[in-house]
Parts: sequence; structure tokens; C-alpha cells
Amino acid sequence: MTLLPEPLKRLVDRLSKLPSIGPRQATRLAFHLIGRGENSIRSLASGVDDLRKIKICEHCFFVHQNSGPLCDICVSKNRNQKVIMVVEKETDLLSLEKTNKFSGRYFILGTIHKTGILEEWQKLRLTNLKKFIQKELGSEAEEIILAFNPTSQGDYNASLIVKELKPFAKKISRLGRGLPVGGEIEFADDDTLGAALERRG
Amino acid sequence: MTLLPEPLKRLVDRLSKLPSIGPRQATRLAFHLIGRGENSIRSLASGVDDLRKIKICEHCFFVHQNSGPLCDICVSKNRNQKVIMVVEKETDLLSLEKTNKFSGRYFILGTIHKTGILEEWQKLRLTNLKKFIQKELGSEAEEIILAFNPTSQGDYNASLIVKELKPFAKKISRLGRGLPVGGEIEFADDDTLGAALERRG
Repeated sequence: MTLLPEPLKRLVDRLSKLPSIGPRQATRLAFHLIGRGENSIRSLASGVDDLRKIKICEHCFFVHQNSGPLCDICVSKNRNQKVIMVVEKETDLLSLEKTNKFSGRYFILGTIHKTGILEEWQKLRLTNLKKFIQKELGSEAEEIILAFNPTSQGDYNASLIVKELKPFAKKISRLGRGLPVGGEIEFADDDTLGAALERRG
Repeated sequence: MTLLPEPLKRLVDRLSKLPSIGPRQATRLAFHLIGRGENSIRSLASGVDDLRKIKICEHCFFVHQNSGPLCDICVSKNRNQKVIMVVEKETDLLSLEKTNKFSGRYFILGTIHKTGILEEWQKLRLTNLKKFIQKELGSEAEEIILAFNPTSQGDYNASLIVKELKPFAKKISRLGRGLPVGGEIEFADDDTLGAALERRG
């Protein structure tokens, strides 16, 4: 006897495939929704379905709902389109944007696999970026900032992307390293403290 | 400038309200879905919506899809309806049922708040159970098993529910305590080891 009704099992399967949701959490979520009742279920279902209305920017691959093909940042005249920050994830873009310290534009490459091998769609995105730089920026961007995590994986990824983009930028930089603001020297790890010393100023 | 399109923000809000999903994970999930494309979005949305087809058993409050009001366990003639296992969560029922060692029926009370104060709907469920016992079992169940967690919170909950159900059962029991099967004595905590000694046999 299988105890779970078919629709419940099916949803648990689908939820389990989402990142960082395991079968246990998926099961709990499904039961929670059933307990919340029909209106909650309908509201979440339509909320998910509404994602179909969201478009992806043809330049930076961030989300938008503009009538044209570009997102708010890529169409903005207040942003320097010649300075391009490469990020892996949309959420990285959101964090960087919150600083209000960057007036260039972005390029979302997608999370790079541990092997450093790019997926086909990631290669397409890079090709797209190169074409944009050639066509719109006269062969070179002013600066490309590789905003990858300050980890050895991030360093590795950066080394790969530098090779790809070197011919397309006057300058390639990465985010600065040092003590996190509000942190304490006593508790900083060796690498961070070393970076803070090297880049003192 | 708000960066997130309205449908995305709305879904993140709704997802964040689900248990053990914070705003960060909600945002990541939403972006992941957008990246997976229209078919994935539609399939998850319809999967959620299909939960509306699921019914709740009038006796035990577990899920089912039968044409009548009762779940498979509550209608089964192979189950002893006079032995009732009280659980907090549907997932507890699933774990217990997987042991294949219980041939009675269940009663899902819902997770009890830390204060031990029952919600209105939980009181209704208890009233429902008492009525069932009076009407169908001739005033007393053979046994009521309180399958609450072996924690101090679980002990407290059990003490509250015992008071409620004492008049309605010949016997009230709880799940046995002792060494978890496959565990090692060396690593068992004091309480577990104490329980194992007391209940040796």
C-alpha cells in the first residue's frame, strides 16, 4: 500500500529536484501546504506560474519585465555600459547592487561547475558578451570586473575567464580582499589577514 | 529602483512564508525556476495546484483521495481501529508506518506549540477523537499510544494529552526508549543509556 496520494508524491518529487531541498523537506512542505488549505495552495501555484511572465535580459541575462529585450540596468543612461561586472549568480548581482557603489553594468555567467568546464549555455553567454563588446564598445570594454567568490574555486574560475576575456578589455580586475568591515582582527583567518596586509592603504 | 520584477518578488514573499525557507533560499529558488524555463515553471505550478485534489481523513486527519471521507488506514479491515497512535505530524505517521509493526490506526494532532497550548483546530480534532471513541468503540479505546518525540518537550506534551485522553482508553502508552538500533554504547548520551538500563530485557 502506498500511503501518499499521487498528487502529493508528484509534488514531493518535483520539489526535491530544487536546489537545497531534499525529499524530507519536500514532504514537510507539501503537508504544510495541504494543511494551509485551498487558498494558500492556489496562491502559491499561481505565484509560481507567474514566473513565466518574467523575461531574461539579452545583454546581462538578469530578469526584467520591460517591453524591450533589455533589463533596467542595461537600458539605463546613468550606467556606464563600458564597465562590466561578471557575476556567477543573480543573487550576487543583487548583493553588489545594494552597495550603491557600482555604476557599470553586469553580466551573469551562471554558476561555474567545480571542474571549471563551462556548460554550452554559458559558452553562448560569453560569446554574446564578446559580440556586444565588439559591436557596441568598439572592440574593448573599459574594465571587466570578475566578481567571483574569494575562494580557491573562485580564483580558478577567474583564471579561466580571464583567458576568455583578456582580448576584450583594457583592464580586468577582481573584487578587493581584506578584513570584512565590522570584523575583528583576532578572529580573521590567516589568508584574509595576509590579504589585508598586502593591500593595506 | 527596485530590481526584482513584481511576480518574482511576490513569489519570494510566498515561499519565504513556508516552514524552514528563508528569504535568501526563496530568492535562489525563484531564480533557479526562471532559469529552468517555462515548462519547469508550469509543471511545478500545476503540481502545487494539484494538492487541492487531496482530502483529509475525517477520523485521523491524514491525507487521502478516496471517494468517501476516510483514508486507507481508517477504512482498512486489517487494522485494529481500537488501538490509536497519536502523532504530531504526518511525517511521523509515515516513519512509524514504514516499520510495518503497527496494525492499529493513527490520529494526527498537529505540532503542539512550545507553550503546550493547543490551537482551536487541535482542540476540535481531540473532540472529534473523543466522539469517535464514544460512538464507535463503546466509550474506551483498547490502547492509545502517544508517539511524541522522546524529548522534554515531548514528555510535556504527553502529560497534557494524557489528561485529555485518560478517560477514553483502557491503557495509555508511549514509545519505548533505549539504545537506537545500530548505535554504539560508547556514544549514547546519559539519558538514553539510563533509559536502556531501566528498560532492559
